[in-house]
Amino acid sequence: MSMAALLRGYRNLYKRCNKYVDITLVSCRSMASKTPVGFIGIGNMGTPMAKNLLKHGYPVIATDVFPESCKELCDSGAQILDCPADVAERADRIITMLPSSPNVIEVYTGPNGILKKVKKGTLLIDSSTIDPSVSKEMALAAEKMGAVYMDAPVSGGVGAASLAKLTFMVGGVEVEFNAAKELLTCMGANVVYCGQVGSGQAVKICNNMMLAIGMIGTAETMNLGIRLGLDPKLLAKILNMSSGRCWSSDTYNPVPGVMEGVPSANSYQGGFGTTLMAKDLGLAQNTATNTRIPIPLGSLAHQIYRIMCACGYANKDFSSVFQFLREEGVQ
Amino acid sequence: MSMAALLRGYRNLYKRCNKYVDITLVSCRSMASKTPVGFIGIGNMGTPMAKNLLKHGYPVIATDVFPESCKELCDSGAQILDCPADVAERADRIITMLPSSPNVIEVYTGPNGILKKVKKGTLLIDSSTIDPSVSKEMALAAEKMGAVYMDAPVSGGVGAASLAKLTFMVGGVEVEFNAAKELLTCMGANVVYCGQVGSGQAVKICNNMMLAIGMIGTAETMNLGIRLGLDPKLLAKILNMSSGRCWSSDTYNPVPGVMEGVPSANSYQGGFGTTLMAKDLGLAQNTATNTRIPIPLGSLAHQIYRIMCACGYANKDFSSVFQFLREEGVQ
Amino acid sequence: MSMAALLRGYRNLYKRCNKYVDITLVSCRSMASKTPVGFIGIGNMGTPMAKNLLKHGYPVIATDVFPESCKELCDSGAQILDCPADVAERADRIITMLPSSPNVIEVYTGPNGILKKVKKGTLLIDSSTIDPSVSKEMALAAEKMGAVYMDAPVSGGVGAASLAKLTFMVGGVEVEFNAAKELLTCMGANVVYCGQVGSGQAVKICNNMMLAIGMIGTAETMNLGIRLGLDPKLLAKILNMSSGRCWSSDTYNPVPGVMEGVPSANSYQGGFGTTLMAKDLGLAQNTATNTRIPIPLGSLAHQIYRIMCACGYANKDFSSVFQFLREEGVQ
Amino acid sequence: MSMAALLRGYRNLYKRCNKYVDITLVSCRSMASKTPVGFIGIGNMGTPMAKNLLKHGYPVIATDVFPESCKELCDSGAQILDCPADVAERADRIITMLPSSPNVIEVYTGPNGILKKVKKGTLLIDSSTIDPSVSKEMALAAEKMGAVYMDAPVSGGVGAASLAKLTFMVGGVEVEFNAAKELLTCMGANVVYCGQVGSGQAVKICNNMMLAIGMIGTAETMNLGIRLGLDPKLLAKILNMSSGRCWSSDTYNPVPGVMEGVPSANSYQGGFGTTLMAKDLGLAQNTATNTRIPIPLGSLAHQIYRIMCACGYANKDFSSVFQFLREEGVQ
Repeated sequence: MSMAALLRGYRNLYKRCNKYVDITLVSCRSMASKTPVGFIGIGNMGTPMAKNLLKHGYPVIATDVFPESCKELCDSGAQILDCPADVAERADRIITMLPSSPNVIEVYTGPNGILKKVKKGTLLIDSSTIDPSVSKEMALAAEKMGAVYMDAPVSGGVGAASLAKLTFMVGGVEVEFNAAKELLTCMGANVVYCGQVGSGQAVKICNNMMLAIGMIGTAETMNLGIRLGLDPKLLAKILNMSSGRCWSSDTYNPVPGVMEGVPSANSYQGGFGTTLMAKDLGLAQNTATNTRIPIPLGSLAHQIYRIMCACGYANKDFSSVFQFLREEGVQ
Repeated sequence: MSMAALLRGYRNLYKRCNKYVDITLVSCRSMASKTPVGFIGIGNMGTPMAKNLLKHGYPVIATDVFPESCKELCDSGAQILDCPADVAERADRIITMLPSSPNVIEVYTGPNGILKKVKKGTLLIDSSTIDPSVSKEMALAAEKMGAVYMDAPVSGGVGAASLAKLTFMVGGVEVEFNAAKELLTCMGANVVYCGQVGSGQAVKICNNMMLAIGMIGTAETMNLGIRLGLDPKLLAKILNMSSGRCWSSDTYNPVPGVMEGVPSANSYQGGFGTTLMAKDLGLAQNTATNTRIPIPLGSLAHQIYRIMCACGYANKDFSSVFQFLREEGVQ
Repeated sequence: MSMAALLRGYRNLYKRCNKYVDITLVSCRSMASKTPVGFIGIGNMGTPMAKNLLKHGYPVIATDVFPESCKELCDSGAQILDCPADVAERADRIITMLPSSPNVIEVYTGPNGILKKVKKGTLLIDSSTIDPSVSKEMALAAEKMGAVYMDAPVSGGVGAASLAKLTFMVGGVEVEFNAAKELLTCMGANVVYCGQVGSGQAVKICNNMMLAIGMIGTAETMNLGIRLGLDPKLLAKILNMSSGRCWSSDTYNPVPGVMEGVPSANSYQGGFGTTLMAKDLGLAQNTATNTRIPIPLGSLAHQIYRIMCACGYANKDFSSVFQFLREEGVQ
Repeated sequence: MSMAALLRGYRNLYKRCNKYVDITLVSCRSMASKTPVGFIGIGNMGTPMAKNLLKHGYPVIATDVFPESCKELCDSGAQILDCPADVAERADRIITMLPSSPNVIEVYTGPNGILKKVKKGTLLIDSSTIDPSVSKEMALAAEKMGAVYMDAPVSGGVGAASLAKLTFMVGGVEVEFNAAKELLTCMGANVVYCGQVGSGQAVKICNNMMLAIGMIGTAETMNLGIRLGLDPKLLAKILNMSSGRCWSSDTYNPVPGVMEGVPSANSYQGGFGTTLMAKDLGLAQNTATNTRIPIPLGSLAHQIYRIMCACGYANKDFSSVFQFLREEGVQ
């Protein structure tokens, strides 16, 4: 067991006793910070994130179910291993970035999963966007092995990942937050503590549901205004100084010609794909259903993005809902 | 015909010829500015608005279908007449503030309506919130009589009306905007020009539809987050620095305890009533239907506020949708 | 004034006095039944309807804003006149079949409209599908001229019109119902009395709103079942003997392969077009908004058909919503 | 191992070889039919169902997590055991009737669950309404133990259970259907084979989603018609002979006064509770989300029943949505 892991073990002990955390331990972790970091899930997001860790001087040990996707990261100096268990054997800090809940369950608890060989005291940070209840299950499973699991889903896409401008929403025991933050700040501009494990996911789900509602609402509102004869730029300007203001109207306006530098100015290419938004809304829908909460608009937003996926908008930015609602609209 | 009206007549001539508007005429209007102003519709909103005109030194000539509602304004120094036609006979600038489209049609084109005795060149400003197509009809009818009609619906409630903090969204011929603004600035903090006649209504309808969507979305999002174990204040804080941000989350949060000085901090009393929001959404729904525009979220927002009216929320602030969706929600 | 019109005048007198209607008058009308019938609106529906009147021996005097559309009817023996007023001058029973409310208003109350020259006692039957409040207005206007107006919108499309298999939903004074029925039975298989004027429209709007909800619901349900591995024919069979049964599942199933002889078996061609359904739902939406009734599903159904119109489904049968929701659905 | 179980073992062998099933085996099962039947889940539904088995001469061995709920069944002659495992030890045909997926998982795979002591060849019939994917999991787990699992959710409430008038929708290997049917016909009037395991659940979910859509749609439609001045009985009559017809309009009309013998005639008491409908819609929502199918109306129906639960309608029949949408509707 490495020094860092040993210290992590102590820290866990402290945490469970609800005692004061000795500042020495924290500074020790800091000193130990250049030990290898594991990274599992080397896709469009994982690759630039892991490269940012390399840039900050962290050795990276990585793996992915599709070995070919590791090529770029390997060229950048990372060591590629066969499976999550192998990574867990060699790293006491591991970041996972996976497409969905089943992948997370497999990577953590599968036959070659992290928990098969995880060292006591290891810090596991899952940046996937998944069901918060799965995060809680993973945290329990990790705890049984003496490891610490935190959820830290991101806001921001491939571009933000490359520029280390992601926002991380972090859930887990607060005493471990700084340890997580040390790594996450290499990959993001904002690292926000949200509460107990699963809270990062909860915040992300909530934010993205509201984002979808705001975007579709903005698209409808702009479309209606245009049909009523208003100039779209003027309408956006007045909304943005009024109670109709939201992020989708003032920062990411879906109407071509209103703003520069957003997907609507570029045929809805790039940005945050409709499929991904539909996936996040599916998580919101499932958590709402399972907690018996009515989310009428969130639910309808989910259905609309689902229909858009079926109508050829799957790979366009989610602001293309303006185009979807408008297409041939004048007849 | 007064001097001001005479000048207005000239200005109309100029306008129709698409010619340069002589600066002299404008300054003449300015000199003539303390001639009486007509005010029709002396209700909760009309009373404080007209009192603000009096405060600025404008004589006010007013009328209302319910004479008793004029008492307060009369005590403040306004002259009360029998009907809109009588007001039109004596004032060459008239402001109307009425509940809905049929009242506007009656007050302008009814048997005792303004247009029965309106003087050529009179400036008619309608601050009611109505269907933009009715505004256009009234403008045409006024034009036939040689008068000028502008729509100038307001944003802000009784409190803003008392403090002269309303926002006016103004539609009509641009050359008349300054004339309207002179009066409207006595009653509001913002006077925004939105385009041709009906544009003020169009902007207001669009803004309020987006506002309703944002409010219900915020209520759902906060409710979901709370059920997922998040602290509401923390959730609001993170949303407000993220893409889930909107006016309802950062300025008028519907969750009790998150913000001070908003209706949710005061049992949803005061503010902007659910009935009024339902009415504005009805206008959005009608204009969208008539222009064959899909507004899926706007339409569902309308249905939700309509249901709330049926379930005892008619007189609560529209942010009470949080309570409506949550009530006994935990079971 | 013809004998029939004279008798109609008497009957109106009787009706207003709420007295017994002399059976003689009714039999007189019957005898007089082969006097010319006016027909205004010679489109896809009007043409076969008027031809069925000709088949039953009624001389037809017709007009349309597009004279070329009258060719087929003219060839069948109808007399074509210039405008509704001219028709009203010569016929004491007139049927109108027009696309929407504004056309009806124009044809009845416009400068060359029916009411300009209508004879006292004339029976006016409007088979257009329009806002019931417009029907009531027209009835009042007709009454002022001594004529009787009934609304009698149809259910069934061009095919049913050709085969005289339409259903007529009739609103108006009950004492005139038999007079209307005499003509309508030449063109339809069912003629149903629904109540006071406007009731025919109200029933049609209600029926079609429910139809749209049932159709979209059936499409969603079948789609979900298929995705869950069910055989669509078996699913339809079980639904149809259970509480999930509706007209769209047992008579007009939207899933290709489940039934023969319906549009889904023929690439969604023919049948009842998406645009027409969207129009009828717009009427439902407007009447619900104006009477302040919540119709959450009806409203969403309206939005869905509106979006379909924008996405290339305008001219397909309304059961194509199955295809719309499913397209590329499996990904 | 009992003779029946032995025969079941043979039959499984036959089934796996896709061979002809010897008629002898079937008749043997028939002869063996009065061996004890296990029944797990003795609630409002389970009690009358198990009593109907007793009436048909089947000895019943039962258990429930709440022992007190077994009293009535015990008095009727059933033997009560401690846990599902104990039942599995003594019966080779077991019926389960449980509230939701987690209970089913516990009863089958928990520490004292059926599969701990199930005998080879045992027929397990689950009549709970749960997620079809859980049914499939249970079937796999049962198969590993040499048992056969079928899902057979019911349609019909406590009344139908008492009168043995339930409908069973059965999923599982077809060769076992007759064995299941032998027992199910003691408790229901219809036993329908739906396909592979999980199909019973799938059909039930689909049917109930369509039922909810039809009911809310009918409530909206009737409410709109009433506001437009139509007589509700007449409106229902016309809908029921037209394309707006559905089970909720012609068999279970939600408007008080339209039909006798339905919950709307009895203050919405009895029938199928709003909470149960919300639960079934939650299953539809989850399966749709997980298979990425858009169900816009089904989803909104779910949200509406969820809101109704929050607004005091939890224990009323699901047709009370008419009252919910209408309450104080006229203002």
